[in-house]
Amino acid sequence: MKLITLLTDFGLRDGYVGVMKGVIWTICPDAHIADLTHTVAPQNIRQGALALALSFPYYPAGSVHVAVVDPGVGTARRPIAARVGDHYFVAPDNGLLSPVFDEAERQGWPADIVHLNRPQYWLDDISHVFHGRDIFSPVAAHLARGIPLEALGDPITDPLRFTLPVAEAFDGGLRGAILLVDNYGNLYSNIPLKALEPYDPARLRIRIAGQEITGLVPSFGYGNEGDLVAVHGTYGSLTVAVVNGNAAKQLSAGVDTPLEVRFPAEPQP
Amino acid sequence: MKLITLLTDFGLRDGYVGVMKGVIWTICPDAHIADLTHTVAPQNIRQGALALALSFPYYPAGSVHVAVVDPGVGTARRPIAARVGDHYFVAPDNGLLSPVFDEAERQGWPADIVHLNRPQYWLDDISHVFHGRDIFSPVAAHLARGIPLEALGDPITDPLRFTLPVAEAFDGGLRGAILLVDNYGNLYSNIPLKALEPYDPARLRIRIAGQEITGLVPSFGYGNEGDLVAVHGTYGSLTVAVVNGNAAKQLSAGVDTPLEVRFPAEPQP
Amino acid sequence: MKLITLLTDFGLRDGYVGVMKGVIWTICPDAHIADLTHTVAPQNIRQGALALALSFPYYPAGSVHVAVVDPGVGTARRPIAARVGDHYFVAPDNGLLSPVFDEAERQGWPADIVHLNRPQYWLDDISHVFHGRDIFSPVAAHLARGIPLEALGDPITDPLRFTLPVAEAFDGGLRGAILLVDNYGNLYSNIPLKALEPYDPARLRIRIAGQEITGLVPSFGYGNEGDLVAVHGTYGSLTVAVVNGNAAKQLSAGVDTPLEVRFPAEPQP
Repeated sequence: MKLITLLTDFGLRDGYVGVMKGVIWTICPDAHIADLTHTVAPQNIRQGALALALSFPYYPAGSVHVAVVDPGVGTARRPIAARVGDHYFVAPDNGLLSPVFDEAERQGWPADIVHLNRPQYWLDDISHVFHGRDIFSPVAAHLARGIPLEALGDPITDPLRFTLPVAEAFDGGLRGAILLVDNYGNLYSNIPLKALEPYDPARLRIRIAGQEITGLVPSFGYGNEGDLVAVHGTYGSLTVAVVNGNAAKQLSAGVDTPLEVRFPAEPQP
Repeated sequence: MKLITLLTDFGLRDGYVGVMKGVIWTICPDAHIADLTHTVAPQNIRQGALALALSFPYYPAGSVHVAVVDPGVGTARRPIAARVGDHYFVAPDNGLLSPVFDEAERQGWPADIVHLNRPQYWLDDISHVFHGRDIFSPVAAHLARGIPLEALGDPITDPLRFTLPVAEAFDGGLRGAILLVDNYGNLYSNIPLKALEPYDPARLRIRIAGQEITGLVPSFGYGNEGDLVAVHGTYGSLTVAVVNGNAAKQLSAGVDTPLEVRFPAEPQP
Repeated sequence: MKLITLLTDFGLRDGYVGVMKGVIWTICPDAHIADLTHTVAPQNIRQGALALALSFPYYPAGSVHVAVVDPGVGTARRPIAARVGDHYFVAPDNGLLSPVFDEAERQGWPADIVHLNRPQYWLDDISHVFHGRDIFSPVAAHLARGIPLEALGDPITDPLRFTLPVAEAFDGGLRGAILLVDNYGNLYSNIPLKALEPYDPARLRIRIAGQEITGLVPSFGYGNEGDLVAVHGTYGSLTVAVVNGNAAKQLSAGVDTPLEVRFPAEPQP
């Protein structure tokens, strides 16, 4: 089973993704190739990095994940590959793998990283502008074929990292921010559902963009059409949504919008 | 040959579809997976149901079709799976399979349906909001691997159904409605081409949105750029189109817009 | 290895592409199928033809490429298939393969073309409006299975061709035009980078849409955010771009916009 996933900001219009698949299949004809997404907002490394970190754990061990959101293509930024736990990653060294490395640290997974500096594993002709085709796809195909990570380049230990905002406790609640907005306009926060488990969900109060929501519900179906709700998110964090509507538009909210959860107060004496 | 198709309203931006493929390949590594469409209008069960019913007959016997347009996810609506003729279906019980069951009745195909209530065939961790990942994808992968439908849950006979508008005869013609608008703005009606076969196509008159079209042509190429035409549709029904243009926009027409076909009258005495 | 690529203007909303895959897998169950793009602008034969000609060389020998941008579907235009060098192509005879035939002539590859006129290799039921499903997909699947090209129809030698604008020399420079606009708004010209190699790239001057750019840089990373730059293009031609921006919008430029490159002048006496 040779499985390669692709995540880029290339869009679907120009055939760039199709070209990457041709390069992969030329080197590794029996690979299965899955598109994670190709509509990351152009050059938005953080959005791509989060989508990758949330998606890859659902793939089988041994999968190779190619991520290309690469505003620095053709400059000094390094191309890298990594083995993190049971998964392989191929990407520019610009932070795209940062949340994957965060997760490795949290989980105690080993992480080995190489600087891709062995052109024998690339296409013969290297452009300055399309390393997704010329370097990352062929390297991923060689990994899927069984070439060891260590053959692809020299080890490094200093990949570019960035820090995601983390929810903070205050007296009586948690203060966080929106990390991601999805296709429906749902607002995914950095407040983990686990942190809210000790409290009666019906009595939590959530403040965002000047609105207050009372209660956390398991799913959209618990509200009525048009209701602003706080709901269990797809990936285990508190999410703000409008039932059959678009919370991002309705609240004019988006990535980095702050939000606050207040726990139920003890009854006054 | 293990073939699974996916139809959702998830869009292509967030990686949700990619995650479903990871879940499927973890359970059934040699499945071929095809995307039918992931841009069903959010929560539009009828649009998804029609797209599925029109597409699945072109797949080989034994294919497994996963459909997820699921506004009621996390509520009491049942997850179901069905064997209809030679095909398998996995979906929420909200009407998404209704036109497939209609077709089974018209064709005399057997239809067996189960309520998916055996969590051993799901992911270990079930969210309230993403049953496409947690229930429907793993169940489809188990079906593709050869687990019998009957093992996945208890039989049911009362899936949710809805009624699609059907063309009605009046004296001298047929009255129908638009069922679907495609990517080009072509308007697919519920008037079957077969019902028009007895008449001279050049003398049919089609009324829609205050316009009258004379004649039914086999394809777009029979008109000139910008002409409003009545044409043979992709799936065997009368379709209204603008040659190299967008009929939906030009007529401000869409799903449920009524239309009328008048047959050629006998010559007056 | 049976590999089929698809390029259409069908969009991703209606399931038309999914239906083509069902038809292909019914005939050739072990084919790998890749999407080159399905968002060619509706009926834009030239855009589809260029995308195909730029993409197919990255696929392995023996691949079958299906292209369907087909405003004349259902009229007298012929369906054709071709073997060009090591690759197979299936398309309407409306110019879609024209740049592929151009490339064959430049490279000295043999090109054999047949008129698809043997219905035994099509679906049983042929619509007037969806030959992508009814003719092109089944023919591609039969080619992938090993049916020889010659069995599919009678040979022809007069496929429809069109002429792409070619850069022209003038005293002190080259005059060309934009051929393609990509998803980022980058403007791909018909001026080959090879023609510029004799000159100091820093001293080239590029004029487009009333703007002048000095210097040609290898990649976007050599400019600052918002800079208008002339850059090495993905497919080896001079490309005009805005760093992390959209040159097409900023310059109100697009396909056929003229541009000019002036070579460095010798120093004045």
